[in-house]
Amino acid sequence: MYTGFRLAYASVPVATPVPMSSHFSQITILAPGLLGASLAIGARERELAGRICIWARREEVRAKCAAQPWCDSVADSPEAACEGSDLVVICTPVETIHRLARRVAGTLKAGAIITDVGSTKGQLCRLSHAVMPEGVHFVGSHPMAGSEKSGMEYARGDLFRKRSCFVTPLEDSDPVAVERVCALWAALGMDVVRTAPELHDRIVANISHLPHFMATIACNWLARNDPEWKNWAGPGLRDTTRVAAGSPDMWRAISEQNREEILRALDGFRAELDHTRVVLEQGRYEELHSLFASGKVYRESLD
Amino acid sequence: MYTGFRLAYASVPVATPVPMSSHFSQITILAPGLLGASLAIGARERELAGRICIWARREEVRAKCAAQPWCDSVADSPEAACEGSDLVVICTPVETIHRLARRVAGTLKAGAIITDVGSTKGQLCRLSHAVMPEGVHFVGSHPMAGSEKSGMEYARGDLFRKRSCFVTPLEDSDPVAVERVCALWAALGMDVVRTAPELHDRIVANISHLPHFMATIACNWLARNDPEWKNWAGPGLRDTTRVAAGSPDMWRAISEQNREEILRALDGFRAELDHTRVVLEQGRYEELHSLFASGKVYRESLD
Repeated sequence: MYTGFRLAYASVPVATPVPMSSHFSQITILAPGLLGASLAIGARERELAGRICIWARREEVRAKCAAQPWCDSVADSPEAACEGSDLVVICTPVETIHRLARRVAGTLKAGAIITDVGSTKGQLCRLSHAVMPEGVHFVGSHPMAGSEKSGMEYARGDLFRKRSCFVTPLEDSDPVAVERVCALWAALGMDVVRTAPELHDRIVANISHLPHFMATIACNWLARNDPEWKNWAGPGLRDTTRVAAGSPDMWRAISEQNREEILRALDGFRAELDHTRVVLEQGRYEELHSLFASGKVYRESLD
Repeated sequence: MYTGFRLAYASVPVATPVPMSSHFSQITILAPGLLGASLAIGARERELAGRICIWARREEVRAKCAAQPWCDSVADSPEAACEGSDLVVICTPVETIHRLARRVAGTLKAGAIITDVGSTKGQLCRLSHAVMPEGVHFVGSHPMAGSEKSGMEYARGDLFRKRSCFVTPLEDSDPVAVERVCALWAALGMDVVRTAPELHDRIVANISHLPHFMATIACNWLARNDPEWKNWAGPGLRDTTRVAAGSPDMWRAISEQNREEILRALDGFRAELDHTRVVLEQGRYEELHSLFASGKVYRESLD
């Protein structure tokens, strides 16, 4: 009998309600795109920050930010933007987060907290934590509120509402810093969960990266066939492949950062595929019906 | 170099505009569910039928139909419902269509046309065509307007609008009957395409059945892992797996009817999966980026 594959981790601790203050006297957002700008808008609307400072790499983006009601000052360098802040949120692409964390580490004031919005956590949390000076705390975050649309122009204050956010402390992370990062995302309406960064990477490999790979693989397979077929695609194919429209740059970076867990998820999916294929090939239709039924139960539990 | 897999068929003829009349003096709909009732509503709204006769297996459904403005008469048997009709549309589950076609064949008047809404075509079209008496014409249809919701209560007259419909004549189908079936679906707002039933089955195996299998397989793989993970699922996983909520009975029947083409589509998808997996495993990130980019191009061509 086929009993399937089960991953090693048993369960994930869900965050208890957080009484910690979610107010910061000054928040710095480095590289505001969809997530960073939405964070600034949400923080302003909810009065979570005395001041909001912005740094963006491109001058025209800095000029655009300076005109926004959610921006109190714009700096020319990440270091200058971080001066005097008690919270820094790095919103650059995932592969550059730890380098930027290292770059600003020396300019952060004592007690400052630095976090990020990267969608992989293991490597970057350990690297970033390691380069912080005494009394400055890096605590990783992954607010799961992206979209296949990216860019500041899509930002909105309720982007995070009712969505999940992982906060991924290490064994020796400062407990108060962890609580304050949790409090920030909770104040923006998020359902916060604390996990080890490696467990986070395993979970998102399965619930986020695997769907992206599936969609990309299906699109490439279909593209190799008759291109006219797409004229008759229904909403099923459209929904199943929607995420494949995401940024190749972003997905390349995620794949690099989370290669091992994605490979493991692909292997599990493939074993399940092989099993299902054999059941169909051998005409075991009662068993195939059970597979459709269990898939339906799982899918309906997502709603 | 990997050049992928290409299916044997080169292209599909797209229907030319149809001047044929889409009016029938009497339409019979056998087993109105979501599709059959939507057809009746649409035909009434557009005045495509002088009379609409209904047969349903269950008495309570017949009683419900009798009270509808889109139903002129309800019969106790499929044979009685077909008497005097110039068009019969069979809307039962796919595995019973050819049996019902055989059952009513003898009661159809000369020149009558019989069609269906089944989502596989090869087997059932050949079987149904073979049992028609001289002067009665079976022409298969597959209006691609289903939903993971099924049942008459979801029916609406614009269900078919701007959706695709396959009409699948055989080599010796009556050309006028084929044109009239095309005209019916076109009058309901559908984009009609004529293909051989076997080519239809190959196309839908790829653009409809494969997505369903992918979604089911992903759900079963995830269900075997930590059930708490689903609490953090984003819209990506939800969209990618939405179709897995479809009816296991219906999907069992589709799988039986279209087993060979589904196996072929699964094999193509799996070869693409294996290729992508190797590219990731070997850290060939430029190539992986190209795969994400080509997937994105294909996905955006669906919009």
